Amino acid sequence: MAHLLSTSCSLKIHSTSKSYPKPLNQGLLSFPTSFTLQTPRFSFRRLVLKGERPQRICTVHATTLPISQEAPTQPSSSSHQTSNEPSKPKRVMIIGGDGYCGWATALHLSNKNYEVAIVDSLVRRLFDHQLGLDSLTPISSIHNRLRRWKSLTGKNIELFIGDICDFEFLSETFKSFEPDAVVHFGEQRSAPYSMIDRSRAVFTQNNNVIGTLNVLFAIKEFGEQCHLVKLGTMGEYGTPNIDIEEGYITITHNGRTDTLPYPKQASSFYHLSKVHDSNNIAFTCKAWGIRATDLNQGVVYGVRTDETEMHEELCNRFDYDGVFGTALNRFCVQAAVGHPLTVYGKGGQTRGYLDIRDTVQCVELAIANPAQPGEFRVFNQFTEQFSVNELATLVTKAGEKLGLNVETISVPNPRVEAEEHYYNAKHTKLIELGLQPHLLSDSLIDSLLNFTIKFQDRVDRKQIMPSVSWRKIGVKPRTVSA
Amino acid sequence: MAHLLSTSCSLKIHSTSKSYPKPLNQGLLSFPTSFTLQTPRFSFRRLVLKGERPQRICTVHATTLPISQEAPTQPSSSSHQTSNEPSKPKRVMIIGGDGYCGWATALHLSNKNYEVAIVDSLVRRLFDHQLGLDSLTPISSIHNRLRRWKSLTGKNIELFIGDICDFEFLSETFKSFEPDAVVHFGEQRSAPYSMIDRSRAVFTQNNNVIGTLNVLFAIKEFGEQCHLVKLGTMGEYGTPNIDIEEGYITITHNGRTDTLPYPKQASSFYHLSKVHDSNNIAFTCKAWGIRATDLNQGVVYGVRTDETEMHEELCNRFDYDGVFGTALNRFCVQAAVGHPLTVYGKGGQTRGYLDIRDTVQCVELAIANPAQPGEFRVFNQFTEQFSVNELATLVTKAGEKLGLNVETISVPNPRVEAEEHYYNAKHTKLIELGLQPHLLSDSLIDSLLNFTIKFQDRVDRKQIMPSVSWRKIGVKPRTVSA
Repeated sequence: MAHLLSTSCSLKIHSTSKSYPKPLNQGLLSFPTSFTLQTPRFSFRRLVLKGERPQRICTVHATTLPISQEAPTQPSSSSHQTSNEPSKPKRVMIIGGDGYCGWATALHLSNKNYEVAIVDSLVRRLFDHQLGLDSLTPISSIHNRLRRWKSLTGKNIELFIGDICDFEFLSETFKSFEPDAVVHFGEQRSAPYSMIDRSRAVFTQNNNVIGTLNVLFAIKEFGEQCHLVKLGTMGEYGTPNIDIEEGYITITHNGRTDTLPYPKQASSFYHLSKVHDSNNIAFTCKAWGIRATDLNQGVVYGVRTDETEMHEELCNRFDYDGVFGTALNRFCVQAAVGHPLTVYGKGGQTRGYLDIRDTVQCVELAIANPAQPGEFRVFNQFTEQFSVNELATLVTKAGEKLGLNVETISVPNPRVEAEEHYYNAKHTKLIELGLQPHLLSDSLIDSLLNFTIKFQDRVDRKQIMPSVSWRKIGVKPRTVSA
Repeated sequence: MAHLLSTSCSLKIHSTSKSYPKPLNQGLLSFPTSFTLQTPRFSFRRLVLKGERPQRICTVHATTLPISQEAPTQPSSSSHQTSNEPSKPKRVMIIGGDGYCGWATALHLSNKNYEVAIVDSLVRRLFDHQLGLDSLTPISSIHNRLRRWKSLTGKNIELFIGDICDFEFLSETFKSFEPDAVVHFGEQRSAPYSMIDRSRAVFTQNNNVIGTLNVLFAIKEFGEQCHLVKLGTMGEYGTPNIDIEEGYITITHNGRTDTLPYPKQASSFYHLSKVHDSNNIAFTCKAWGIRATDLNQGVVYGVRTDETEMHEELCNRFDYDGVFGTALNRFCVQAAVGHPLTVYGKGGQTRGYLDIRDTVQCVELAIANPAQPGEFRVFNQFTEQFSVNELATLVTKAGEKLGLNVETISVPNPRVEAEEHYYNAKHTKLIELGLQPHLLSDSLIDSLLNFTIKFQDRVDRKQIMPSVSWRKIGVKPRTVSA
């Protein structure tokens, strides 16, 4: 099937009125265009229209061209504004919408009739190239993904390709899209990646902290009612010897009592960057009245959501490597290809876990029930907690039902972390908002093991073992040999 | 008096042995040199010796040239290694050693026979130029300061001019100087500066967080026994409704107990950057065994120390402006020139304060009693706590004794902060190590008011009022008109 990629350009002069018609697909351009690279870090492709004034907003769109399953065109986005739910936030910007959680979330919200824009630098794909890694699943380009989604559903997802650390780019996306909510997945999200070498540690903290600062400034400047839904991590809390609460803890000390931010003990430069973000966001809520929800997410597993299952071109990425792969996904790949499950150290490390189908539910719940102006709300976003040893046992038993012979080995722990510890983290707030969890016991075989078996021929066994040491990180840039 | 500035170059190939002779002043160079600018952010002047191998270390030194009060040359630094105090850390690198606290500390430690190196980009002086500000006191160039110090005492202070965010520069300074302790004052240290506009907020967090990350990596790579003495701030804690402990708090919750990092509630992008630093440092202590002391310093006042009083060219800076001036220093300037004391809001804001003579004592105590490997030690570094109203009353009464008519006005608070609150912060650990405080009641008139009266002709009244608003910060770069 031949696909033609084209671009369209939404021309829009910023208006403070939300009733200004939203730009729609303008079709093929018939006048000369040129592309410019805006930033030295990652490219922001901008259509420059000759003779146009610079304040006009030009963005790269994926458009639907000759795809045979073309769906009937949906009513324009402005029709949503006359629906029966006038107070529901309509326009959601998903930063990092080409990534693992972001892509699933973008499709889910689009399917739920939110107007969705994806903002992404696509740097996650570059990391794979640079480190010689690949998703277990073949994934399409973001352009093909969006064209396919439009062809199947008639729904348009706007695309802004650029780096949110470039404030000029970010401000243009805000002025163009005018989001009611911003879901911020757009960070370097791997703890091992942040521990490869000094330059990756610095990149991770700079990229994540400054990117989030820019988002906060964009909200303050261009849409102060916009609700920030920020992806944090349960790893911010570390493993304290007391119950983990949702963001805050009430402390009585020397006869006085206050409710304070829950103490954080992050254990990688990545996790630390999320702690920094949380502190920055909390301050701007107080100082500027920003409304924000921090979703301290657990370890996500699974790949299928209702939307990504609709077509192979919508398939999500699935990482099992030693840098980006999370524990359960990696175990399932290992079971599928007859590689021993690699437990790091004693395996008593306990964390919160959730199915990616619950990630998208949680984000939707947060958007539909926004924080109040000035409120910094924290939800712990996971559904069950397991130790690594418990996960290994579950995968072993499920594998046996499928006729797999699953072994487990302990490998030296590349991380610095407690391997036996107390862990009891609260996670009731999203349940109270209506989250209906997909539990691991129900999805392990179908959604995970059978899935990894299907793609076992794509497994690169060299990627499985840990390659990054928390203690051995150094200042020399590390690269990957051929 | 004519001063000739020259440069000398210490050539040194990095050796892992501490017994390798330290470089001394080599006198005037007789071979060709050239200067290169190494970084696009701030310049690092490096002497490049033609034909030399690049790994040889070249630094810019201030040397003693024709100054009439030349003191007898001190014995070389290696002689310290045969002193009666073999376990005392000898070589102290002071990052930010040209600044307010850093300069006083550098001289104090040099006077106490530590081998001292100053690492500084001199960007603090650039900020003054850019914002149209100036120290109340005339301050000499760092080169003249160091030459004067050498001429008076015979003691050499090495100088490395460059930006610690440039890791190549920082690593060269570490390999060249081989510090036993690093005192890190080298951060953008003004809360209002960080709230001027988006670019200053981003600069502050990037500069402070990445600079400190680089210092941590340099210690890990080049001197893992080196003790990091990092300047934090009491502002990291905010104003909780419970007693503030020194870095950690023991919490009993749902029947279990743990000692955890004290919750932080910083209230500017500057204060937040210090929180980020603290979290990053704590992690590296645990993961890498770094030994670190975090000095959560209160508001510093005063200008004179034993060493800066020795000569006018050693005089420290004294900031009273709305960006860099701290409350008490500003009040004294206001009293001296007949400007009403400007209390922000209700004036119930209570903080910890200390005399700059105690700053230098505290740093010396921290160095002389280093943290253990892997220990992240936190000291609250202040001696007394006052509300802003209490300070205004003290200055008013002291001014009356000198015949000054001192008025106080309340101005709209440019910050977002509680103006009436509980405040009780512990500060016993430095006392236990031997700190002997200089209390405000003893120094207010002599060390502060008489001092500001002496320099009242240099006061620029336009600098006094607050010019930066926590709420009005925006994304457009702000500049200062002529």
